[in-house]
Amino acid sequence: MIDKSIIEAENAKRAAALRADYDALGENLARRGIDIAAVKAKVASYGVAVPSWGVGTGGTRFARFPGAGEPRHIFDKLEDCGVIQSLTRATPAVSLHIPWDKAPAADLLAKAAQLGLRFDAMNSNTFQDQPDQPHSYKFGSLSHADRATRAQAVEHNIECIEIGRALGSKALTVWIGDGSNFPGQTDFTRQFERYLESMKQVYAALPDDWRIFSEHKMFEPAFYSTVVQDWGTNYLIAKELGDKAFCLVDLGHHAPNVNIEMIVARLIQFGKLGGFHFNDSKYGDDDLDTGSIDPYRLFLVFNELVGAEGKAGFSPAHMLDQSHNVTDPIESLMVSATEVQRAYAQALLVDRKALAACQDGNDALMATTTLKHGFRTDVEPVLAMARMEAGGAIDPVATYRASGYRAKVAAVRPRVTGGGGGIV
Amino acid sequence: MIDKSIIEAENAKRAAALRADYDALGENLARRGIDIAAVKAKVASYGVAVPSWGVGTGGTRFARFPGAGEPRHIFDKLEDCGVIQSLTRATPAVSLHIPWDKAPAADLLAKAAQLGLRFDAMNSNTFQDQPDQPHSYKFGSLSHADRATRAQAVEHNIECIEIGRALGSKALTVWIGDGSNFPGQTDFTRQFERYLESMKQVYAALPDDWRIFSEHKMFEPAFYSTVVQDWGTNYLIAKELGDKAFCLVDLGHHAPNVNIEMIVARLIQFGKLGGFHFNDSKYGDDDLDTGSIDPYRLFLVFNELVGAEGKAGFSPAHMLDQSHNVTDPIESLMVSATEVQRAYAQALLVDRKALAACQDGNDALMATTTLKHGFRTDVEPVLAMARMEAGGAIDPVATYRASGYRAKVAAVRPRVTGGGGGIV
Amino acid sequence: MIDKSIIEAENAKRAAALRADYDALGENLARRGIDIAAVKAKVASYGVAVPSWGVGTGGTRFARFPGAGEPRHIFDKLEDCGVIQSLTRATPAVSLHIPWDKAPAADLLAKAAQLGLRFDAMNSNTFQDQPDQPHSYKFGSLSHADRATRAQAVEHNIECIEIGRALGSKALTVWIGDGSNFPGQTDFTRQFERYLESMKQVYAALPDDWRIFSEHKMFEPAFYSTVVQDWGTNYLIAKELGDKAFCLVDLGHHAPNVNIEMIVARLIQFGKLGGFHFNDSKYGDDDLDTGSIDPYRLFLVFNELVGAEGKAGFSPAHMLDQSHNVTDPIESLMVSATEVQRAYAQALLVDRKALAACQDGNDALMATTTLKHGFRTDVEPVLAMARMEAGGAIDPVATYRASGYRAKVAAVRPRVTGGGGGIV
Amino acid sequence: MIDKSIIEAENAKRAAALRADYDALGENLARRGIDIAAVKAKVASYGVAVPSWGVGTGGTRFARFPGAGEPRHIFDKLEDCGVIQSLTRATPAVSLHIPWDKAPAADLLAKAAQLGLRFDAMNSNTFQDQPDQPHSYKFGSLSHADRATRAQAVEHNIECIEIGRALGSKALTVWIGDGSNFPGQTDFTRQFERYLESMKQVYAALPDDWRIFSEHKMFEPAFYSTVVQDWGTNYLIAKELGDKAFCLVDLGHHAPNVNIEMIVARLIQFGKLGGFHFNDSKYGDDDLDTGSIDPYRLFLVFNELVGAEGKAGFSPAHMLDQSHNVTDPIESLMVSATEVQRAYAQALLVDRKALAACQDGNDALMATTTLKHGFRTDVEPVLAMARMEAGGAIDPVATYRASGYRAKVAAVRPRVTGGGGGIV
Repeated sequence: MIDKSIIEAENAKRAAALRADYDALGENLARRGIDIAAVKAKVASYGVAVPSWGVGTGGTRFARFPGAGEPRHIFDKLEDCGVIQSLTRATPAVSLHIPWDKAPAADLLAKAAQLGLRFDAMNSNTFQDQPDQPHSYKFGSLSHADRATRAQAVEHNIECIEIGRALGSKALTVWIGDGSNFPGQTDFTRQFERYLESMKQVYAALPDDWRIFSEHKMFEPAFYSTVVQDWGTNYLIAKELGDKAFCLVDLGHHAPNVNIEMIVARLIQFGKLGGFHFNDSKYGDDDLDTGSIDPYRLFLVFNELVGAEGKAGFSPAHMLDQSHNVTDPIESLMVSATEVQRAYAQALLVDRKALAACQDGNDALMATTTLKHGFRTDVEPVLAMARMEAGGAIDPVATYRASGYRAKVAAVRPRVTGGGGGIV
Repeated sequence: MIDKSIIEAENAKRAAALRADYDALGENLARRGIDIAAVKAKVASYGVAVPSWGVGTGGTRFARFPGAGEPRHIFDKLEDCGVIQSLTRATPAVSLHIPWDKAPAADLLAKAAQLGLRFDAMNSNTFQDQPDQPHSYKFGSLSHADRATRAQAVEHNIECIEIGRALGSKALTVWIGDGSNFPGQTDFTRQFERYLESMKQVYAALPDDWRIFSEHKMFEPAFYSTVVQDWGTNYLIAKELGDKAFCLVDLGHHAPNVNIEMIVARLIQFGKLGGFHFNDSKYGDDDLDTGSIDPYRLFLVFNELVGAEGKAGFSPAHMLDQSHNVTDPIESLMVSATEVQRAYAQALLVDRKALAACQDGNDALMATTTLKHGFRTDVEPVLAMARMEAGGAIDPVATYRASGYRAKVAAVRPRVTGGGGGIV
Repeated sequence: MIDKSIIEAENAKRAAALRADYDALGENLARRGIDIAAVKAKVASYGVAVPSWGVGTGGTRFARFPGAGEPRHIFDKLEDCGVIQSLTRATPAVSLHIPWDKAPAADLLAKAAQLGLRFDAMNSNTFQDQPDQPHSYKFGSLSHADRATRAQAVEHNIECIEIGRALGSKALTVWIGDGSNFPGQTDFTRQFERYLESMKQVYAALPDDWRIFSEHKMFEPAFYSTVVQDWGTNYLIAKELGDKAFCLVDLGHHAPNVNIEMIVARLIQFGKLGGFHFNDSKYGDDDLDTGSIDPYRLFLVFNELVGAEGKAGFSPAHMLDQSHNVTDPIESLMVSATEVQRAYAQALLVDRKALAACQDGNDALMATTTLKHGFRTDVEPVLAMARMEAGGAIDPVATYRASGYRAKVAAVRPRVTGGGGGIV
Repeated sequence: MIDKSIIEAENAKRAAALRADYDALGENLARRGIDIAAVKAKVASYGVAVPSWGVGTGGTRFARFPGAGEPRHIFDKLEDCGVIQSLTRATPAVSLHIPWDKAPAADLLAKAAQLGLRFDAMNSNTFQDQPDQPHSYKFGSLSHADRATRAQAVEHNIECIEIGRALGSKALTVWIGDGSNFPGQTDFTRQFERYLESMKQVYAALPDDWRIFSEHKMFEPAFYSTVVQDWGTNYLIAKELGDKAFCLVDLGHHAPNVNIEMIVARLIQFGKLGGFHFNDSKYGDDDLDTGSIDPYRLFLVFNELVGAEGKAGFSPAHMLDQSHNVTDPIESLMVSATEVQRAYAQALLVDRKALAACQDGNDALMATTTLKHGFRTDVEPVLAMARMEAGGAIDPVATYRASGYRAKVAAVRPRVTGGGGGIV
């Protein structure tokens, strides 16, 4: 873990400059009628979950290039997550993936407690075959043509719920790779009927205080059609299942050019927004670092979320979901958590009364200018101050590098050699 | 109109070859267990509506280049539609656009009767301002921030219903240009609430035996967001309105790469497919001739439709909706009507029992091969024979050219000069 | 025009706050080793041209909704451009479009001199038919199958050069609508050969100190293919023509997802970047306000430009090219000019030495963080200070509204009524 | 291998029907002035290469689901390729991938001779790390910032040439994964300069009678930028390298909506079309079976190729490149080879004189109808007859299944268990 003294030493180098920037921003915001302390308080209370698999180096179907000190198992992963939380104070929860993260509940709870972490939504996996699994998911899982294969997938999801109950989780996220690669390979309607039937069985096993999130995705690993291809189908699912069922939005799972913030608004309006997998993308499900490609789009999503704050029953789950192929995953996750906070803080600055007046008066130019005023404000001092005050680092990446954490774990975790991805 | 003797003379040149091709195809189909006469009968009974505005030369925002003999009014347009029907025997109905086609109902009915045409769905227009219109649609119509503007738009739609009742129409199609050009220009949720409120007023005026079709479109003329951006929102509308409300699918109104045939399947499954605006596109709402860019996609749509034939309440409306910028509109509409019939005929050839068996057995290769077997069959002899037997032309375009119709109408309809589109 | 006293009065309200923000930013930048005054000086010397047609309300093929006080002719347009320049001090030049802006050279020069404006690149128009034009451009212009039509288009371009010479312009921009709407409509190769032949004739008429810019565009108004579809073809053109030929990049003319900043880099590397048409887009050639949809993309383009500053022969032309459908065009152009300056100023802040070190060391995370540090800095105080010191407005839109300019010109310029776009 | 008697027995079941269909088509074509025997002869002489890696089951970054009888090494792969060739008579050559297919040249040549196969273009691999490789390709290969890594990649490519020389290959295909995942991660220009420098070294080692093919790709495995992102950059490479350098077009490597057949035409016109990787795609580099998603697009590509036949120096390489995730790879490759032949045969039927006349006369409708007449002709009888006469199968898939080949090899090739793709 990161020694407190390192954080303090690093913060000491930057505290005076931060104070100056914070005060200047405070004055600027005061002139705009905004209390910087109130914004800071909201930022400080905001958290985004980290996926357990995110702390390992990702890969493509062509290759995987591991880094030094790759986590060997869920306990290594939790330690890496603990580093992220200790430096950013923005990632209090970890989202587990079953079966990858299977371990005795008591051990997981103990480790998490020691690291100041808790467990977010559980993630099932029916897009891969596990050794000794009776039925293959090559042709689908929850929507498979064969009843026994569907039953196996249902059972796995129910097992994920059971594991999550023991860990204090309150939600199950279901993403599947089911679909087809050829026109005609599947009957769209019968396949979807089977999917719904399976999901209803999973839903029936859901505790009363749990939620289930279905996730839509346009393509990959299926390349002609996917069962839950877009938010339209996702909404139908949530509607068919019931009040505990919601739609999860992964920012990289849409068709080119699609207006994602509008999808978010629609799901909020109809009471079915479950939460997010945050990342960024330029082409497809690129799983790049959040805000790295189009930070304004991220802001526009948060503009919808801030606008909906306080709406009855509105409580979306926030999680990062990225693939780190060329960076140290811990660094990427720290920066990404900060980017999510940044978008949130910027959205908090929008003068919503003025905005509504522009909208009602068809003053398109001042409406968009009002919105953008929030976005172009450099809120870094607010984020950094919130981090510092919570015991985190003003500059998480620099502090992390100063700590030598990666080298330390590389010394005990065996080197993993690279190799082919799925194609070889 | 086209003189019968011309059709007969042109058909005479081609009848022997057609007979040979038809017989050869018949033998081939017989070997596949398909009765060519049964296919021909289904094709013969199939019709697709022609939009009144389609017989005029279209344009872009940059320019419009009219052709010779542009129709001056709805009666000229009906005559052009009559030509299409007389040669193809595939387009028995015309879809009117209000206010462009306003005229005394008795005159319209008389003209249509004379031409052997009837009236399909009515189309309202709240995407343009008409002279002397009190409220502008610059910032929206059914979803406008201003109540009076919305009321005007509602009233116009109700007027369209009234006009349609007098003409024997049974449906209203609502496409609007409402949306926004800037992030923040509108509040997505309030805008959609206003849209729903307006549509409920229109719906309330709908006769019992009518249907109302809402049409989604991703962009244009609004370039940041549209109120009915995709089938997801469109489904919500149909659901909110009631049992007489359905979704209309225009093939060119989707995001890049979207699987349209799957959207069709979903809308069928949930009882909300209202019908189609057929055309083709490569980039956006290009409004190109149906089947001219991706004929296999058109076939895959018809594969869903044929698969759903006989389903209770399944009765989608079929209409062409194209913009003819570089062709004689009559020729384009004739060819397009034929392309729709072609896709229908090919979809009828699919061995659905064999297909289902492949699907259930996860035989992806033979499933897609089975489907494609229908597509790669050249069904032109079936279409041509059906046309000829109904009094139409074996080769509609050649016969039309032989008739000299365009020159004849050009002699009486004044020449229209070109000019700028919307941008000037 | 805008009275100086109004500018001064409006500035007086904002000067103290600006000073405070400017000083705070100056301190922040000083800590980063950046001299704010040097940045301000570069911003102050930066200018982006305004297109004459941009000050009128745009339209789509569906409709045009004019605003109050639409300019009647080029002299009205120049006055509007003068307003933009007087308030922003960022738009010293106007780009003319022929034949729309034809007028005696002496009158144009006099008016421009009076307004403190000069003339940028000339724009030809062979995408529309003009009254009394012998040959139609319906099927193409510079690439038309017919020699006489091509000759007419060549002659028009040469006339544009002649007009420009008299006005002090130094460049001709050629954008054409040539292409096709159907597979097979044209032979790609023969069409492009004809295009090149025509362009060589235009090139031959180019004065020694002029440049010619060809502009690529993926689609619209042609919807299956365009002659200059992308930068690859555009590069071939510039290469075939010679040293005075360059490629113009319109930000909205690319395929979905394309990395535009990389195209900019390639054209710079191979000495063929001619300049820009700045705007923003979400779907196609939406012609939205610059930076309104994806401000980070604009910054990334400027990152390439700043990186290339000082390279021999590097002198791209900067112009706005937008369609203003729902805003006052003057306001949109002022804000857009500011957005271009903003991206430029942010790109100037990037620590290029640190960036290069990250790149050479494969430190992807710190490379992108270094880049983004420039982007997330709020440079508005620099822009506003530069404007104020040059006699412009701290807040151009507020000052413009305070001036009542629009109402004044609306009183003398007759109201234009709306109507259909190209489709009617 | 497939026993001749099986082929004969299967053909016997289908020969009479084939003869009838062939004769009927012959009559139809004769009426169109086309000699069916001439078309058949051209089809019979056409071949498309099979990639060695294509006969194994592919995978995605999420998972790989192997089938029965997966080939263990290049000799198994060659046997599978031999099956494809013996049944389709359309795939006389195999394209090797180094280091995956490394083996003694004499053994490879002997095996190929035995199977009636020869070796097509060699493929290098610098997108994965091999065990014991001194320098990692995590951050690039031919364009890596580090000189030693580039040298290693250059050397590997030269080794591929050496291996190929011994096998009778005449071309090297270079596809690399180099690019970046973050804005700023690389300097576009310096990266491309390094790439060119490396490629020039490879080019220098190219025998006089060899060609080198560079391959562009928009994204994946790099998700912000790729070094050879499109045909524009690819053309620059071929131009910089010299007369033996050409561009390879993979149908799935382009931006959404891009007009690929036009890119083919441009590369032909400028003498730089090297060849193809055939496959199909709906979203990205989906690597689906050729012609399975958009068969008309494939036809339009072949329309360009047939149009260029006979042009001096025109001799593009044809290869399949697909990933078979849900089918038996042998079946997919047989069907795909047939689809390529189908598109070729259909393109041969186009009446090019009539087409050119329509183009010159701006008869867009008849131009596209003329083109499509070729496409909608069912040429299966021509393909099947050509196969049968060459000793292949009328129905390759049915014959293959009847042969029991897969079960036979599964008995001797050990079962491979599934597992995660690159992400785990």
